[in-house]
Amino acid sequence: MKHAGDGATWDRGTEWLRGKGDAADVVMSSRVRVARNLAGFPFTTKATHDDRVQILDLCRRRVMGGEFQQAAGAERVMWIDLHDVEELEREVLVERHLISRQHARGRLATGAGGADAPRAVAVSLPDERVAVMVNEEDQLRIQVIRSGLALGELLGEIDAVDDALEGGLDYAFHPRFGYLTACPTNVGTGIRFSVMLHLPGLKLTGEIERVKRAAEDMSLAVRGFYGEGSEAAGDFYQVSNQTTLGKSEPVLLHEMQREIVPRIVDYERHARRTMMDKRRRVLEDKVHRALGVLRSARLMRAGEAMGLLSHLRLGVVLGLIDDVDQHAVNELMLLVHPAHLQRSVGRPLSQPERRIERATLVRTRLGGDT
Amino acid sequence: MKHAGDGATWDRGTEWLRGKGDAADVVMSSRVRVARNLAGFPFTTKATHDDRVQILDLCRRRVMGGEFQQAAGAERVMWIDLHDVEELEREVLVERHLISRQHARGRLATGAGGADAPRAVAVSLPDERVAVMVNEEDQLRIQVIRSGLALGELLGEIDAVDDALEGGLDYAFHPRFGYLTACPTNVGTGIRFSVMLHLPGLKLTGEIERVKRAAEDMSLAVRGFYGEGSEAAGDFYQVSNQTTLGKSEPVLLHEMQREIVPRIVDYERHARRTMMDKRRRVLEDKVHRALGVLRSARLMRAGEAMGLLSHLRLGVVLGLIDDVDQHAVNELMLLVHPAHLQRSVGRPLSQPERRIERATLVRTRLGGDT
Repeated sequence: MKHAGDGATWDRGTEWLRGKGDAADVVMSSRVRVARNLAGFPFTTKATHDDRVQILDLCRRRVMGGEFQQAAGAERVMWIDLHDVEELEREVLVERHLISRQHARGRLATGAGGADAPRAVAVSLPDERVAVMVNEEDQLRIQVIRSGLALGELLGEIDAVDDALEGGLDYAFHPRFGYLTACPTNVGTGIRFSVMLHLPGLKLTGEIERVKRAAEDMSLAVRGFYGEGSEAAGDFYQVSNQTTLGKSEPVLLHEMQREIVPRIVDYERHARRTMMDKRRRVLEDKVHRALGVLRSARLMRAGEAMGLLSHLRLGVVLGLIDDVDQHAVNELMLLVHPAHLQRSVGRPLSQPERRIERATLVRTRLGGDT
Repeated sequence: MKHAGDGATWDRGTEWLRGKGDAADVVMSSRVRVARNLAGFPFTTKATHDDRVQILDLCRRRVMGGEFQQAAGAERVMWIDLHDVEELEREVLVERHLISRQHARGRLATGAGGADAPRAVAVSLPDERVAVMVNEEDQLRIQVIRSGLALGELLGEIDAVDDALEGGLDYAFHPRFGYLTACPTNVGTGIRFSVMLHLPGLKLTGEIERVKRAAEDMSLAVRGFYGEGSEAAGDFYQVSNQTTLGKSEPVLLHEMQREIVPRIVDYERHARRTMMDKRRRVLEDKVHRALGVLRSARLMRAGEAMGLLSHLRLGVVLGLIDDVDQHAVNELMLLVHPAHLQRSVGRPLSQPERRIERATLVRTRLGGDT
């Protein structure tokens, strides 16, 4: 298969863009990921080409069997051999948070691999709620994702999916350490919980750095919209647990779902209320200007678009803007990125062309002038 | 008379806001001013209170006689004793370019005078094309103003008005030096030609400083929207001749009307064409963003408003924006200033209130969201 799927179908389906669920005013999406490796094979970093091909083959057969699809609640499962698709298609998958940037390139942290390295991703359709990367740093990285704060439900889902895979794959497991992983920070339960938080209120009140530091002091990683090393574009922050060894899944879940995330959500809501009560004009000015610029600009960089969409999303959530749908805003947060933009236009675009097409896209989608 | 006139009438009438006339794409307005003093009285700087009252009385009788009104082509003439009106009313006159800031305060460069100093202005209605300041630095400062490049016509008009006044007033005149004035730079013909130029193209191409220096090298003064010491808000530049001694009126007129101003107009048009040909997207982006922000902001400072209106005016003149009238844009360039804003709201406004009311005004006038 050369193409990573039909864009129109994708854009309709993606569950985590819906803006539904608990605390969806602040929590854009929740994600749970586990790392698994097969017994009898070296880790990907040490694997030969033949090892990789064998692993890929074993995983494909299991993933494309009926049990996985059923456990994932999918209408169908799409398997994409990443070494076989064009770079643009791989970038689209990165922008949709279905594969890591590292997996798109095929190059591991150790320098092993490359664009031709045998590797794949399986995606549940139509809603993209389950994805399995094969031959990433770990041989299997399974993720489930959905909108709102839903780490508990996701844990149940990933357990079912994980069991469905394990039923036909021999996972590397150590009786004392648990699931073995390439990176020691994932050993044990091998689980990572993460949430994508929208924190424009804390940014506006200037409290964001304090909250970030507090999260980091609790051993949480705070990253940007596109994970490790990416900037916090548009006031979006990905917060996840760092270590998995020595803590059980229920304990990790409880900390994230019941303690830490609700506290940050409370801080953010408090900051928004403060702005609404004490600096309402400033807030209204910001959100309406954002919409005004999005509806009128002829050139726009991705970073600016994310910043404006962030303010617009805040305005929609707070009821300050009533003629724009939150789902439309969430969708644009994907569509303004280079690969999606080029896919929607249907051809490769230079940097200057992207600025034009990006502005046209947001203007059109938000009912601006033409 | 306590009030400086009915706002609604004024805003409709002002001729120089119409955006008509020669080179109106670049020349917002032309203005000719002469300075006159009465024989037998000391200059205003040395005048006693009684002198001032006497001068005011002589001038009022002459100005309010029928000859001046006829020469000015006015339906009626409004006389305003500035020592009798409130500060806000005086500020409105400054913002309309009918009196100088110095005349509003009543304080001369020497430090003489004050808010109570007997002084006045006469304004031709309804179009405000002729104004006579009495007891400014010179005892009479007559100005005629209209839209577009029209210094020749204005010279004819100011001659007629000057003659009508001279018919009943004894001007201080020296057979060798000409009309005597308080400041030596005005001695001789006592005439000053000036044009208000809109130079956003030269600003965008980065050539504005070079053109400014060239103009200054030709002994021209280059000032901002509100004259001496004011910033060039919104890319508006007031260009005028500095000295009047030793050059005849026809020579000064020829230099300004036929040589210098047309050359700057050509530069500006060339800069705009370059932008249209080579950086059209950048230009479209700027003008549409300007309109987008003007139509959506909830808070706005005067300086930002002038900058956005400047870009909007450029877009309208170049046909890039077709649903906004140039006259409306020109009017807003007055209405966003503090005194006009407060007059339109009907009460004094604090700085923060002004930002709110200014944003509301431009949004409403330009058909933005409400």
